Amino acid sequence: MTKPTLEEAVALTSVFPTIVAAAHRRNQGKDVVKPRDDFGHAANLLWMMDGKEPSADRTRWLESYLVLLADHGLNASTFTARVIASTGSDLTSCVVGAIGALKGPAHGGATLAVRTMLDKIGSAANAEKWLTDAHARKERFAGFGHRVYRTYDPRATIFRELAKTAAPELHRTAARTEEVALQILHEAHPERPNATNVDYWAAVVLTGADIPKELFTCIFATSRVSGWTAHVLEALQDLRIIRPASVWIGPEPGHKPLPLAKR
Amino acid sequence: MTKPTLEEAVALTSVFPTIVAAAHRRNQGKDVVKPRDDFGHAANLLWMMDGKEPSADRTRWLESYLVLLADHGLNASTFTARVIASTGSDLTSCVVGAIGALKGPAHGGATLAVRTMLDKIGSAANAEKWLTDAHARKERFAGFGHRVYRTYDPRATIFRELAKTAAPELHRTAARTEEVALQILHEAHPERPNATNVDYWAAVVLTGADIPKELFTCIFATSRVSGWTAHVLEALQDLRIIRPASVWIGPEPGHKPLPLAKR
Repeated sequence: MTKPTLEEAVALTSVFPTIVAAAHRRNQGKDVVKPRDDFGHAANLLWMMDGKEPSADRTRWLESYLVLLADHGLNASTFTARVIASTGSDLTSCVVGAIGALKGPAHGGATLAVRTMLDKIGSAANAEKWLTDAHARKERFAGFGHRVYRTYDPRATIFRELAKTAAPELHRTAARTEEVALQILHEAHPERPNATNVDYWAAVVLTGADIPKELFTCIFATSRVSGWTAHVLEALQDLRIIRPASVWIGPEPGHKPLPLAKR
Repeated sequence: MTKPTLEEAVALTSVFPTIVAAAHRRNQGKDVVKPRDDFGHAANLLWMMDGKEPSADRTRWLESYLVLLADHGLNASTFTARVIASTGSDLTSCVVGAIGALKGPAHGGATLAVRTMLDKIGSAANAEKWLTDAHARKERFAGFGHRVYRTYDPRATIFRELAKTAAPELHRTAARTEEVALQILHEAHPERPNATNVDYWAAVVLTGADIPKELFTCIFATSRVSGWTAHVLEALQDLRIIRPASVWIGPEPGHKPLPLAKR
């Protein structure tokens, strides 16, 4: 088993845009585009995705996303990487496990859920009607609430500002949607914080950077892999296996289970 | 994302012997052997590995291993599967992540470490000298101590008994090694429980069942996948994302980090 190193962490982080862009082009039946030495990380991702030079603005929007989403405490995918690392496993195993966790709709799938919702709403004018109807159907609004933040996610503030220039039309829809959604949520659940989370405005910025929505979760992984690998390297400083105890809440010892045929 | 089902759990568990045996034969440049409908899970694994009908004894020894190792609380790989499941991810992602954790030498690699140690010792007569020398070199003895058990692992008791007939010669070496190792450990660390763990005697039983040692960790996965998938299905009953909080122990906010060039 190879002990994770900083060089390996950098190599894994740097290869993600190549993997994501290549898979995307293959899915469209297009040839893979090689990275360019004169482009940075974000610009190369766009270049390899499209095969044309990205604008400075698009590059900056994507780069802002990649930087802001790079790490965020012991979120579920990062924690997965640390549990795997705690057994002395290799870095690729940690990252593959983390991707498995990020895939989940309660984690990395959230940005796509926001975009899907905004697509359904379609315009600022339609926001109030759509949200009122959705609320009546007891549908959850995507992009609100977080396990850790109890206030407006500070990352969302930055994305909200960026989104004004990155995607002005979608920004208008999203801003009106946010206003009405928070109103409805505060009325329905005054006891909850009901704050906008990072996924909400991130979805608008990624749309402005012309990232196809089916790649949103992959782009999240492209950013977070730097956090995953940094956490694994930190964990190596004081390696102790992570294996929580569990509490038995079943029947007492001596209890005879029902025969299979009678269940 | 497909929600994990019992059918999928059974399918994943049942395909592990096929994958392990096929990979093993491929590594040896041999053709893959198809499973047989008239064989059970353990017998099929041996059949597909060797291409010849396994004896009833060998089948029973492997089967005992597969049953006894199937589940064990929130061990690191099972916990990995549960963290991944907590995001609403799919069952294969949970199992792939769990395999990544099981690979670690502090987890699934332990049985192989025991076998490697016993191979080096070679005979009951050599145990005392080898262990005394290893202890002087501050080497850890493989197969002793556990994060949960503070006494003789009850599973080790069963394997120790089975090993008498499964691998009589290695049993003698292992029994003498255990005796001397526990003596040395108790003298060096009287405050520790120093008990034999399941991996110790499991290594002897797997050897008796003629499992090549490079497959030990894969056979562990073949057993534990039933526990992983059962835990994921249990977790679905009350899905809540697992993301612990972390405590900041770095410098206070406002602290200016050293410029890169000065680090």
